[in-house]
Amino acid sequence: MIIGFDVGGTNARGILLDANSGAVLDRTSRSSAGAGPVLLAKLVEMVGELRDRNSSVIDSIGLGIAGLAHQSGVVRYSPNLPELVEYPIGPELEQATGCPVTVINDATAGAWAEAKLGAGRGVDDLAFVALGTGIGTGFIANGALILGANGFAGESGHMVIDVDGPTHHTGQAGPWEYFASGTALGRMGREAAAAGRFPLGVTLAGSVDDITGFHLAEAESRGDEAATAIFDEFCREVARGIANLILVLDSERVVLGGGLTTIGAPLRDGVDRWLRVLLPGQARRPVVDVVLAELGADASTIGAALMSLDLPLGG
Amino acid sequence: MIIGFDVGGTNARGILLDANSGAVLDRTSRSSAGAGPVLLAKLVEMVGELRDRNSSVIDSIGLGIAGLAHQSGVVRYSPNLPELVEYPIGPELEQATGCPVTVINDATAGAWAEAKLGAGRGVDDLAFVALGTGIGTGFIANGALILGANGFAGESGHMVIDVDGPTHHTGQAGPWEYFASGTALGRMGREAAAAGRFPLGVTLAGSVDDITGFHLAEAESRGDEAATAIFDEFCREVARGIANLILVLDSERVVLGGGLTTIGAPLRDGVDRWLRVLLPGQARRPVVDVVLAELGADASTIGAALMSLDLPLGG
Repeated sequence: MIIGFDVGGTNARGILLDANSGAVLDRTSRSSAGAGPVLLAKLVEMVGELRDRNSSVIDSIGLGIAGLAHQSGVVRYSPNLPELVEYPIGPELEQATGCPVTVINDATAGAWAEAKLGAGRGVDDLAFVALGTGIGTGFIANGALILGANGFAGESGHMVIDVDGPTHHTGQAGPWEYFASGTALGRMGREAAAAGRFPLGVTLAGSVDDITGFHLAEAESRGDEAATAIFDEFCREVARGIANLILVLDSERVVLGGGLTTIGAPLRDGVDRWLRVLLPGQARRPVVDVVLAELGADASTIGAALMSLDLPLGG
Repeated sequence: MIIGFDVGGTNARGILLDANSGAVLDRTSRSSAGAGPVLLAKLVEMVGELRDRNSSVIDSIGLGIAGLAHQSGVVRYSPNLPELVEYPIGPELEQATGCPVTVINDATAGAWAEAKLGAGRGVDDLAFVALGTGIGTGFIANGALILGANGFAGESGHMVIDVDGPTHHTGQAGPWEYFASGTALGRMGREAAAAGRFPLGVTLAGSVDDITGFHLAEAESRGDEAATAIFDEFCREVARGIANLILVLDSERVVLGGGLTTIGAPLRDGVDRWLRVLLPGQARRPVVDVVLAELGADASTIGAALMSLDLPLGG
């Protein structure tokens, strides 16, 4: 049995996974608030809980973390988990549990899970694009996960798309994430509402300021014209970054993951349509397959668990 | 013995390579003008020439081609070799010579050569960036070449960097290549000269219209202030695209290749300096190593030859 965690800004969620069948046998979660040692204690507690109530022997543990997860098991940068930065969470958890531990970026883990057990099965060249608060990505090339020299591969949300564009909270001008994350979708809805162009958004959310991407998706699903136009523009921005990624990697399939995939078919269809327009040389290459993730919120936990079998710390 | 060809818009150059030592034993070249069967006849002739005058047995042949080289051995797209598009040059050469043939993008081949025998030796995560008329790129991840699903990986010159930017000859707005190729450097020099800001350029080239990137490099090497400022701006544009690639791939080293590397240290130093400024999270990650290619104009021929050992058509 293996354990996977997804440590986000709010919660640390854990699963017990049967490595042979890929079945999720048990789940648990805790708040992820607090400094490194506090999180460590909660992880140790959850490992014990998953192990004991399933009478399992734990072979290894994977930690998927939102941020730059160095392969040594230290998080180098994480806007969502500032207190965890530079704390050796991987080695400490290894010491505390006696199990091999792998620390990996959450989207990278998600890519691996979708490749092995989800919407990317059987595809050797795969791009996983998680649309949430930001954009996380992970890639499979030649059937292998691209980790990069430090384990930092897949920070594509920070790719510059519009060099003269607005400044993102990272300080960069015009990164992909600014235009194509869930945060961006909400902003587009609020801007339209503030300009009087999206009254249904105000009705659904209660006020302009409370409009999020989900209100936009809800309005779009009701056939609201303003929402449909904004959502189409959003899908174009998502596809624009994906086109860049396909140019670099020539992926055969793109798996859309993250919170925004609850929108479902309209998101897939919109991105697919725009990718055909925006990808240079589209007439001379096979159409890239755009699909929705299958593992939902479990992708990062499952992927981290699976990676722990293949990628021990320092390995 | 293996043979590698680099088929560009003007010439097809061939080498005979000792696969064990990596030594280039002989060279030949012909014009690459003409339709597929014409080029095929010249390639067959060169294979015979390299084989016979060295009394060699040829194990395999690699063709590096500027364009979208499909792994089936057909060139799908090539602005520089329009008559070759959709002609099955790989299978035909295989049939005519009786040797296994591999067809591969020239920059992808260059990346492999630099990784195996040049400036990328010993590095498992490598980006090769060839700056010439356009920008060609090739990548190594986990020690393996990234070919992509069709062999089309590494078309990064077409990544959009400035979504509202000028339209490139590909029809795209603001791709990296528009700002950071040798063509771009020449244009920057001509624009400055036309505005009266680069008199030395006019002196060196004879007229504004004749200024190329090499005049700019020459003026820069003489300490000309205008040229230095333009060249610095150019290095920033090169680094901007490389920063995007590092975000995607977390490469440990960047090898700068292509015709512009004759500029030497100023190019390396300028790109290195700007990459440190432009790569997000630079303070939290090891500095990316920026180096000049070592194999010069031979990179693509050597890489194509080496790839022919590992990647037979349809393999």
